[in-house]
Amino acid sequence: MRAGGRAGVWGRAAAACVLTLCFGTLHAIALKSQLFTRLGGSSHSSENPINYETFYFDQKIDHFGFLEDGTFKQRYLVANKHWKQPAGPILFYTGNEGDITWFCNNTGFMWEIAEELGAMLVFAEHRYYGESLPFGQESYSDNKHLNYLTSEQALADFAVLIQNLKSTLPGAQHSPVIAVGGSYGGMLSAWFRMKYPNIVVGALASSAPIWQFPGMVPCGDFYKIVTQDFARSGYNCDANIRKSWKAINNVSSTVSGLQWLSEEFSLCSPLKTPIDVVVFKNWLQETWVNLAMVDYPYEANFLQPLPRWPIQVVCKYLGFDSTVSDYQLLHGVSQAAKVYYNYTGSSTCLNTSQTATGSLGYLGWFYQACTEMVMPMCTDGVQDMFEPEEWNFQAFSDECSAMFGVRPRADWADIVYGGKDIASHSNIIFSNGGLDPWSAGGVTYNVTDSLVSIMIPDGAHHLDLRYSNDHDPPSVRAARALEVKYFQEWIMQAKKAPRTVTTP
Amino acid sequence: MRAGGRAGVWGRAAAACVLTLCFGTLHAIALKSQLFTRLGGSSHSSENPINYETFYFDQKIDHFGFLEDGTFKQRYLVANKHWKQPAGPILFYTGNEGDITWFCNNTGFMWEIAEELGAMLVFAEHRYYGESLPFGQESYSDNKHLNYLTSEQALADFAVLIQNLKSTLPGAQHSPVIAVGGSYGGMLSAWFRMKYPNIVVGALASSAPIWQFPGMVPCGDFYKIVTQDFARSGYNCDANIRKSWKAINNVSSTVSGLQWLSEEFSLCSPLKTPIDVVVFKNWLQETWVNLAMVDYPYEANFLQPLPRWPIQVVCKYLGFDSTVSDYQLLHGVSQAAKVYYNYTGSSTCLNTSQTATGSLGYLGWFYQACTEMVMPMCTDGVQDMFEPEEWNFQAFSDECSAMFGVRPRADWADIVYGGKDIASHSNIIFSNGGLDPWSAGGVTYNVTDSLVSIMIPDGAHHLDLRYSNDHDPPSVRAARALEVKYFQEWIMQAKKAPRTVTTP
Repeated sequence: MRAGGRAGVWGRAAAACVLTLCFGTLHAIALKSQLFTRLGGSSHSSENPINYETFYFDQKIDHFGFLEDGTFKQRYLVANKHWKQPAGPILFYTGNEGDITWFCNNTGFMWEIAEELGAMLVFAEHRYYGESLPFGQESYSDNKHLNYLTSEQALADFAVLIQNLKSTLPGAQHSPVIAVGGSYGGMLSAWFRMKYPNIVVGALASSAPIWQFPGMVPCGDFYKIVTQDFARSGYNCDANIRKSWKAINNVSSTVSGLQWLSEEFSLCSPLKTPIDVVVFKNWLQETWVNLAMVDYPYEANFLQPLPRWPIQVVCKYLGFDSTVSDYQLLHGVSQAAKVYYNYTGSSTCLNTSQTATGSLGYLGWFYQACTEMVMPMCTDGVQDMFEPEEWNFQAFSDECSAMFGVRPRADWADIVYGGKDIASHSNIIFSNGGLDPWSAGGVTYNVTDSLVSIMIPDGAHHLDLRYSNDHDPPSVRAARALEVKYFQEWIMQAKKAPRTVTTP
Repeated sequence: MRAGGRAGVWGRAAAACVLTLCFGTLHAIALKSQLFTRLGGSSHSSENPINYETFYFDQKIDHFGFLEDGTFKQRYLVANKHWKQPAGPILFYTGNEGDITWFCNNTGFMWEIAEELGAMLVFAEHRYYGESLPFGQESYSDNKHLNYLTSEQALADFAVLIQNLKSTLPGAQHSPVIAVGGSYGGMLSAWFRMKYPNIVVGALASSAPIWQFPGMVPCGDFYKIVTQDFARSGYNCDANIRKSWKAINNVSSTVSGLQWLSEEFSLCSPLKTPIDVVVFKNWLQETWVNLAMVDYPYEANFLQPLPRWPIQVVCKYLGFDSTVSDYQLLHGVSQAAKVYYNYTGSSTCLNTSQTATGSLGYLGWFYQACTEMVMPMCTDGVQDMFEPEEWNFQAFSDECSAMFGVRPRADWADIVYGGKDIASHSNIIFSNGGLDPWSAGGVTYNVTDSLVSIMIPDGAHHLDLRYSNDHDPPSVRAARALEVKYFQEWIMQAKKAPRTVTTP
């Protein structure tokens, strides 16, 4: 375990509990930033301008209890330019942990297929994010106010909202609804179909790691995929990153080394203490993870603007052979990091407390990771290029208790969402990118004829949901075409199904 | 609506709000007592003695929030005499609104088929009933403590309990689990399969009115079936009950008439006020409803001991032709009521505040009816034999607010449990009795090949779950045989299905 291992290196000053905090938050931060940042950029074409109306729906704060009967304004966006009413389909984006306008602006796939399907687009914001705050500015004030931030409440929001739209929007009563989402939003779209098949006829769950929970997949697979992405992108690239941690430890063991490192990496705040170095290494690790997620085949603008196939660009600085010195190696690492943080050359310094831009839901996702979204991750330094670190649930739980006054329930997601026993459900597409570390926890094989997997070998994190691009590999073009085919099939099925007769 | 209608008869003293309370509670009481009392009696044969062990499981008070992290002891009963381990099936009774030992003792069907299936029997108590009180004696003290009394929490309890049993009981890891329940317990077993198909391979939902919710079935069907039961059981039986309400109004309009009525019915508390008469009529109405539910083909002991085909016995006192006087008619009604309340002749007086014995969960069911379990009922006095009374949700809601400080959510059950759109689920048997008024809200046709209906034309409320009896009609024998056949099929399916590989 990292905490213990590092205590030896850094001495007693780096108390285990503090390091555990870093350990605990590393995954949380990594998870958060990864989930958050994957959808950035705005390459939407001028032929498909984004044009929507914004609405607010009075949503119950608590769907699962009746004491708290208050409501809040849930934001949702509607684009009905291409909608063929009556009964034209509705594509419903199950918003994840961020501002819904951001997801709306960056899910080009939905905008590009709306006309073909005659579909209305609805983007629903997830409670506790963006403007959809159950208690306004108090929403994050304590664990009492955070108590209604769960995926079950979010799914119930979506269900109630759709039911309301169908009963109030002229022409929508018999509209089949398809859930669409990416990353955590993809998990929500899959779970939405599983739990509310009466509300949605099918779901596209893009890059949705619904199996990244305890006991379902090996905890090391995520970082193995990150490592493979670097290994395939340049000579010795993964090997040199693997060596870099020891080099950092060596160099940072002296005051002059710390100063050199700080200058070499143009850090905004110079490294001073052992804790600073731990934070620095975590920051670098997150940088490599983020790069693996956004390793897209074209120039894109996420946290920072990035070149096409950014890992290849990064690896140009890491092609050393085995004789490289610590200082040479770390010079290469700093150049590589600056590809990610300073591609345009406009940064004056790098900030190790930040790997993603925007203020989107960090705290909310921390809370979710500390409650339901328990996603074990680990590294061994052999099959991956990171420092060995076991998954330590107890330490994680203790940190959550200290941070939020709540403890995660490791088994709950498995019980409530079925874990690997999902074969009785239907009409869900699980799409995954071969380059995406989150595919480690994804559904990457056909579970049944109607729980299908679409693999995009050259794809990073939910490439299929993004706007189409001239540099798109054939695999993502094929994936999108197949997804539309399934949508059409589900819509046909729904039209054939007997309609519910409602008694007044 | 009754409140308004009666105000004219009884004068301003019977203020609308008070009458609304009666109206509101009538259905709640009827519902409650009906659901409660159907399972009474203990005709279990000596060849199948009931022998179980009692356990308590530390269950989370709140599955859907993390602030309340406390636990309570959920009681469950286990009988494993016939269990064939490893991997023998588990029949899991999804406890309803009462003491689980009572359900256990009165679900003879499970005890009778355990050996044939090599099954373990588990009876899980529903939270807030019996001994499974989340806050001990405080559980019902206010709406804060009642906040965790929902069907969703109950289903989560069942899921967590089963997951725990499977992971801790040697030989149970691969045991297929089948949910069994009757009435509200049957609704739970159906919903359990819908929401947790990862936990149970199938469900037997006996006499489960999952469609007795707003907009799904006509609100008058329930009382129509009650009326039909009386119509078929004796000459003019329903017609004379229909006339009795006016006769009661006439007779009770004088002080001497009130006295006569009180004596004729041997009431423990004489009728004095118009409100007393309203309560008296509600009590009679409930009596007829209860008789419809327990119209079994053999002598049985429920609230009170009853003869075989009790409605036929009751109707012997109600065979008047149209020339009968009010007093003659009400004499017949009193004789009929005493069949229900005093078959053994041991009652000294009749109590109009009581229609069911036992202290089983009245208040809990009221609360559930006032939150999720919104089941519209109405009468028109034409197609049924009762005084006309419309369904008035607003009045009901106001009463709930006054009683518990909560308001029912009329649409929630539909949204969360799918209403009539359940075709995508699988492996649920809905059995219903043709004599049972609750069949009005039941699933009485095959929705799909694996959401099947079994009708028992001569059956009252979940006759199939009771012990077999020499007087059982062929239809219930056939139903039980078919149910076992489906169980065996589900168990076979489960054995063939690939087993989940769990990663440590």
